[in-house]
Amino acid sequence: MSDLPQEIEIREEGPREGFQIEPGPIPSEAKIRLIEALAGTGLHHIQVCSFVNPRLVPGWADAEAVVAGLTACPDVHYTALWFNETGLNRALAFRDKLTIAGAIALSASEAFTRKNLNRSHAENVAAMRKQTALHLSHGVLVSRIGVMAAFGCNYQGDITPLQVVRTLEDGFAIAAEAGTTITEISLADTMGWAMPLRIEAALGAVRERWPDCRIALHLHDTRGLAVANAHAGLRMGIARFDSTVGGLGGCPFAGQKGAAGNICTEELVLLCEEMGIRTGVDLDALIEVGRMAEAIVGHQLPSELIHAGSLDAFRRRAA
Amino acid sequence: MSDLPQEIEIREEGPREGFQIEPGPIPSEAKIRLIEALAGTGLHHIQVCSFVNPRLVPGWADAEAVVAGLTACPDVHYTALWFNETGLNRALAFRDKLTIAGAIALSASEAFTRKNLNRSHAENVAAMRKQTALHLSHGVLVSRIGVMAAFGCNYQGDITPLQVVRTLEDGFAIAAEAGTTITEISLADTMGWAMPLRIEAALGAVRERWPDCRIALHLHDTRGLAVANAHAGLRMGIARFDSTVGGLGGCPFAGQKGAAGNICTEELVLLCEEMGIRTGVDLDALIEVGRMAEAIVGHQLPSELIHAGSLDAFRRRAA
Repeated sequence: MSDLPQEIEIREEGPREGFQIEPGPIPSEAKIRLIEALAGTGLHHIQVCSFVNPRLVPGWADAEAVVAGLTACPDVHYTALWFNETGLNRALAFRDKLTIAGAIALSASEAFTRKNLNRSHAENVAAMRKQTALHLSHGVLVSRIGVMAAFGCNYQGDITPLQVVRTLEDGFAIAAEAGTTITEISLADTMGWAMPLRIEAALGAVRERWPDCRIALHLHDTRGLAVANAHAGLRMGIARFDSTVGGLGGCPFAGQKGAAGNICTEELVLLCEEMGIRTGVDLDALIEVGRMAEAIVGHQLPSELIHAGSLDAFRRRAA
Repeated sequence: MSDLPQEIEIREEGPREGFQIEPGPIPSEAKIRLIEALAGTGLHHIQVCSFVNPRLVPGWADAEAVVAGLTACPDVHYTALWFNETGLNRALAFRDKLTIAGAIALSASEAFTRKNLNRSHAENVAAMRKQTALHLSHGVLVSRIGVMAAFGCNYQGDITPLQVVRTLEDGFAIAAEAGTTITEISLADTMGWAMPLRIEAALGAVRERWPDCRIALHLHDTRGLAVANAHAGLRMGIARFDSTVGGLGGCPFAGQKGAAGNICTEELVLLCEEMGIRTGVDLDALIEVGRMAEAIVGHQLPSELIHAGSLDAFRRRAA
């Protein structure tokens, strides 16, 4: 138990993940309302939009309107996602409001890279080399490598820790060539293949190879194991997690429509707080925001906790 | 890891839990179809109905019709639930088809006993004393003590391992007085208060006091932590779990309507099989039954896995 972190950092991705996948259209005003409410819960990192091609992702055609419209809290990092120079330039237009950071994004599954990006792994490495140079030339920090499908892939099957390490080696080579230092590795369970033993094995292998890097987990609840996987990560000392309020988002690669998305922020917060790990988040306030998210998207979200209420609320009533 | 069981026994409670809480009416034919499909997945214990007052639980007014109508598999134990002599006699009428066993059912929370049964704990102990004698007088085995609200209670707040041990002591006293031997203790997280550390603490205390008793876990996913809690139980060597296909059921004590019910059988099976723990269940067949359950109740069930598909299905496609 000595490995448990004292506190964790949560990167809330609900707005970006959620509004990307919902059929919508969801008014910019509702998106801004959700983001501002999230900032009021104590979350310090909120991914607010994607600067992507509006023809491909119509849910984020209003990215500029959302960023321009939101009232920023001084102690909150607002982040965004982009995949190319056009997107980066759109993000840089909000340099005063957004925390702009680049990442080297690779996948441990070549089959997924082909399916998702229509590129081979080698082509993707070349693209990331270019993108890293582009980021650095704009003065944008690149200190993170993200590995998608790090625990398994619907198109390739199981992924071994060795495949994760090799993918990361490619990422470190890109960084070294560009002259930038990697301080964080993010392992993503993009399609819900992780389970606790697989989390432990991958974290062990990555930590042994890069002991000085912080590791973050990006978990999906595709098959219902996300909280158990987060617990395995916490036990290994992991202190950075991506999550989405209400479990906003989904999985376009699942076998059926209606598959769950990311781990729910409020269930992650509950788990941590009950373990004595600080999150800085007011869980009751966050549950209210989860209910707001459900009202905005107009259908039930995967989070169980927003339907049940927090333990503290019942503790207060019972006292 | 040496504590991991090699195999687990799953008691499927989906039909009983699910059809009790659904507004319905659900035709007896559909209930029978679900039970027979469950028996085809490799599950060996299926709780098929409640013999309760049809005015209070209209969803089980057709208990007799369901038991009479189902074609029993020889290697499956079909069980039922009842709370009084009338119910027991209704169950005993199907002695040839049902596995009839009694239990001493107590709650670690006096507030819950009052809310749920309108009795004090002492009154409930007296009632259980009577019921145990009644069971034994009918030649019905009573070898199990069940403790509800063993990890916390919406009406009383946190429950300590000591409170669980004391509740069990009352149960063992009832058994000793009646001259019956207890071989199994079942701890129920009736309102979703458990988390892994609390599971470990309660199991440790109970096991230290009664090292020769098998312990079963009855987990609810009210706040999304059920799979993490099952994992904690498995790591402590627990090898008996109640669960419901698709997560059928619900929580009438939750803060809001729509709260989740028991841990999903298919997510428990996935977790175990991926850990190398045998369940005897064909997961792909079970996922199909979960989808059937969803069609029967006419709304989305909490199980994420039935929407995503099993890993093995994707492994076969990827190979």
